Amino acid sequence: MPTAPSANPAVDTAAVAALLERGRTMSTPVLRAAVDRLAPPMDTVAAYHFGWIDAHGRPADGDGGKAVRPALALLSAEAAGAAPEVGVPGAVAVELVHNFSLLHDDLMDGDEQRRHRDTVWKVHGPAQAILVGDALFALANEILLELGTVEAGRATRRLTAATRKLIDGQAQDISYEHRERVTVEECLEMEGNKTGALLACAVSIGAVLGGADDRTADTLEAYGYHLGLAFQAVDDLLGIWGDPEATGKQTWSDLRQRKKSLPVVAALAAGGPASRRLGELLAADAKADPGERPATAGDVDGFSEEEFAARAALIEEAGGREWTSQEARRQHAVAVAALDRVDMPGHVRAQLVALADFVVVRKR
Amino acid sequence: MPTAPSANPAVDTAAVAALLERGRTMSTPVLRAAVDRLAPPMDTVAAYHFGWIDAHGRPADGDGGKAVRPALALLSAEAAGAAPEVGVPGAVAVELVHNFSLLHDDLMDGDEQRRHRDTVWKVHGPAQAILVGDALFALANEILLELGTVEAGRATRRLTAATRKLIDGQAQDISYEHRERVTVEECLEMEGNKTGALLACAVSIGAVLGGADDRTADTLEAYGYHLGLAFQAVDDLLGIWGDPEATGKQTWSDLRQRKKSLPVVAALAAGGPASRRLGELLAADAKADPGERPATAGDVDGFSEEEFAARAALIEEAGGREWTSQEARRQHAVAVAALDRVDMPGHVRAQLVALADFVVVRKR
Repeated sequence: MPTAPSANPAVDTAAVAALLERGRTMSTPVLRAAVDRLAPPMDTVAAYHFGWIDAHGRPADGDGGKAVRPALALLSAEAAGAAPEVGVPGAVAVELVHNFSLLHDDLMDGDEQRRHRDTVWKVHGPAQAILVGDALFALANEILLELGTVEAGRATRRLTAATRKLIDGQAQDISYEHRERVTVEECLEMEGNKTGALLACAVSIGAVLGGADDRTADTLEAYGYHLGLAFQAVDDLLGIWGDPEATGKQTWSDLRQRKKSLPVVAALAAGGPASRRLGELLAADAKADPGERPATAGDVDGFSEEEFAARAALIEEAGGREWTSQEARRQHAVAVAALDRVDMPGHVRAQLVALADFVVVRKR
Repeated sequence: MPTAPSANPAVDTAAVAALLERGRTMSTPVLRAAVDRLAPPMDTVAAYHFGWIDAHGRPADGDGGKAVRPALALLSAEAAGAAPEVGVPGAVAVELVHNFSLLHDDLMDGDEQRRHRDTVWKVHGPAQAILVGDALFALANEILLELGTVEAGRATRRLTAATRKLIDGQAQDISYEHRERVTVEECLEMEGNKTGALLACAVSIGAVLGGADDRTADTLEAYGYHLGLAFQAVDDLLGIWGDPEATGKQTWSDLRQRKKSLPVVAALAAGGPASRRLGELLAADAKADPGERPATAGDVDGFSEEEFAARAALIEEAGGREWTSQEARRQHAVAVAALDRVDMPGHVRAQLVALADFVVVRKR
């Protein structure tokens, strides 16, 4: 399996597609039944968010996301020797927490688009985005705890720990946007919190529900955490250079938001003429709007496509793009290596490796 | 014990003060230690919300609320024959959920003042209000689940159910504000969700942590639920006729927010000239601003003190004030009657009755 940092792995596309499809097929009906428990109008708002209906309430076949987490939660159960079904409540709980955080983060960040559609706060207003986010978070705990088992309590505890890290990460993300400098280490810590922690939980939750001990769960979480960092490094690349058609986000999305993402902080840390010029530009941008970040921050005012393109080119010239690509492959290698420390069926291990490969080559 | 609907009970003020003080003394250090776990700046924002520091970060001795819930959680443990200490994690978890909901509701409702101070979204911005609310909710589950016992899992499940009802109630509250008519039954259901469910949980959570069976917990919840409805009826009276000095809210606070609170819906349902005149006025108010409710709704625009006073007078003339006072005493009686269905030490029962008495005569 090609996991060396110098090249992207070859992906078994069909195997990954089948895994993602299985995760979606097995978890979506349970997820929909959970969301149906919400009182009106929260059920409708949530159904819009998940892409099951459009803004007018008509059935839709929206893009529900990549569904990497459900696929991982089912494999997680299998890694502990349980049936994939055992991981389903875990898959649903993790998806609920993930979507709770999307609803709140989109509002806090002022993001108007997600998955090619207007975000919930844009369509249904800020109050519904807050309320439905809260409801999905509560529902996640409900789905697990109603199992009534000791394992469910342990799984909920891990999910709660991951959710706290998710919130820490969002707090860091917000505070970094108006700081002139963020170190690469700070950025990796933030991304580990925002993305690594919940992916880690997805990879341990099925195993915990299947009776795995804490050591096994912790090692599976190490795979998931580094997979999350690889995932986020790729996300950061797509956030600047991604194809809007594929990602469903605006061009230069992360630059519009002034996100101190990995390519940016790596470029600033690199030194050299392009790095210095980038630093001067970003410092000037920050001075031009030094105010407190509003709940709905929106774009950096008054910048043209050309100005964003110039910043992107400087980041690339300073080496931020290449460093981030390398970082994705480094994290991928660490993730895959963790799998050797867990005794699991060979085909489960192979599928976890295939998913890791997919994460670093995806275009959306 | 005077529980007849026709008269307010005489309250053993010293006993109630001692109970509230015990709840505060035993739970506050654990609550503060829990909040200290939050990463900056969330720890500071939460400390401001709880009144431990002022807006400039200086130590403050703010009004942390009445602390009815912590007092109930400790009595709850004693009702199950356990030491009051057993109820402390439950008291803290319930307080965390309560304050999570205050942070989010104040933002959704546009409330600018709470406990005589600017609300968190006013001082620290909407994003921090969302984020710290989320963090307190997660922390509530963390505090319980880290106990690692079967009882803690059961307690968390009950807390989650209560939180879901809390969210349902806020959803109803928001939707009612722009409806012309809300029935008394709808209003009671909403208030049962918003206030009854979490008070009910406070009264069962200590018992559950102390090993009580589900039947005992359910009966204690019945006391708490009806106590909550009595509490809310009094809150609705204070929301219109309360002394701003005592409540820390603006004059006519609930009328400014167009809250369809009990006095209003009872007055509208009463019939008669004052009821009809009130209905016409409120319908005209709604027509004047039929738009979607923003996240920060603020006041009904352009109304003078006199106009609010006229509405309050009509509510009183139509009988809404008296009906709500009677309702508080009815719910108080139902709550106290539920205590007879649980076998508990006599002094614990007497203290639960004293707290119920306090709830219906309080002025803040």
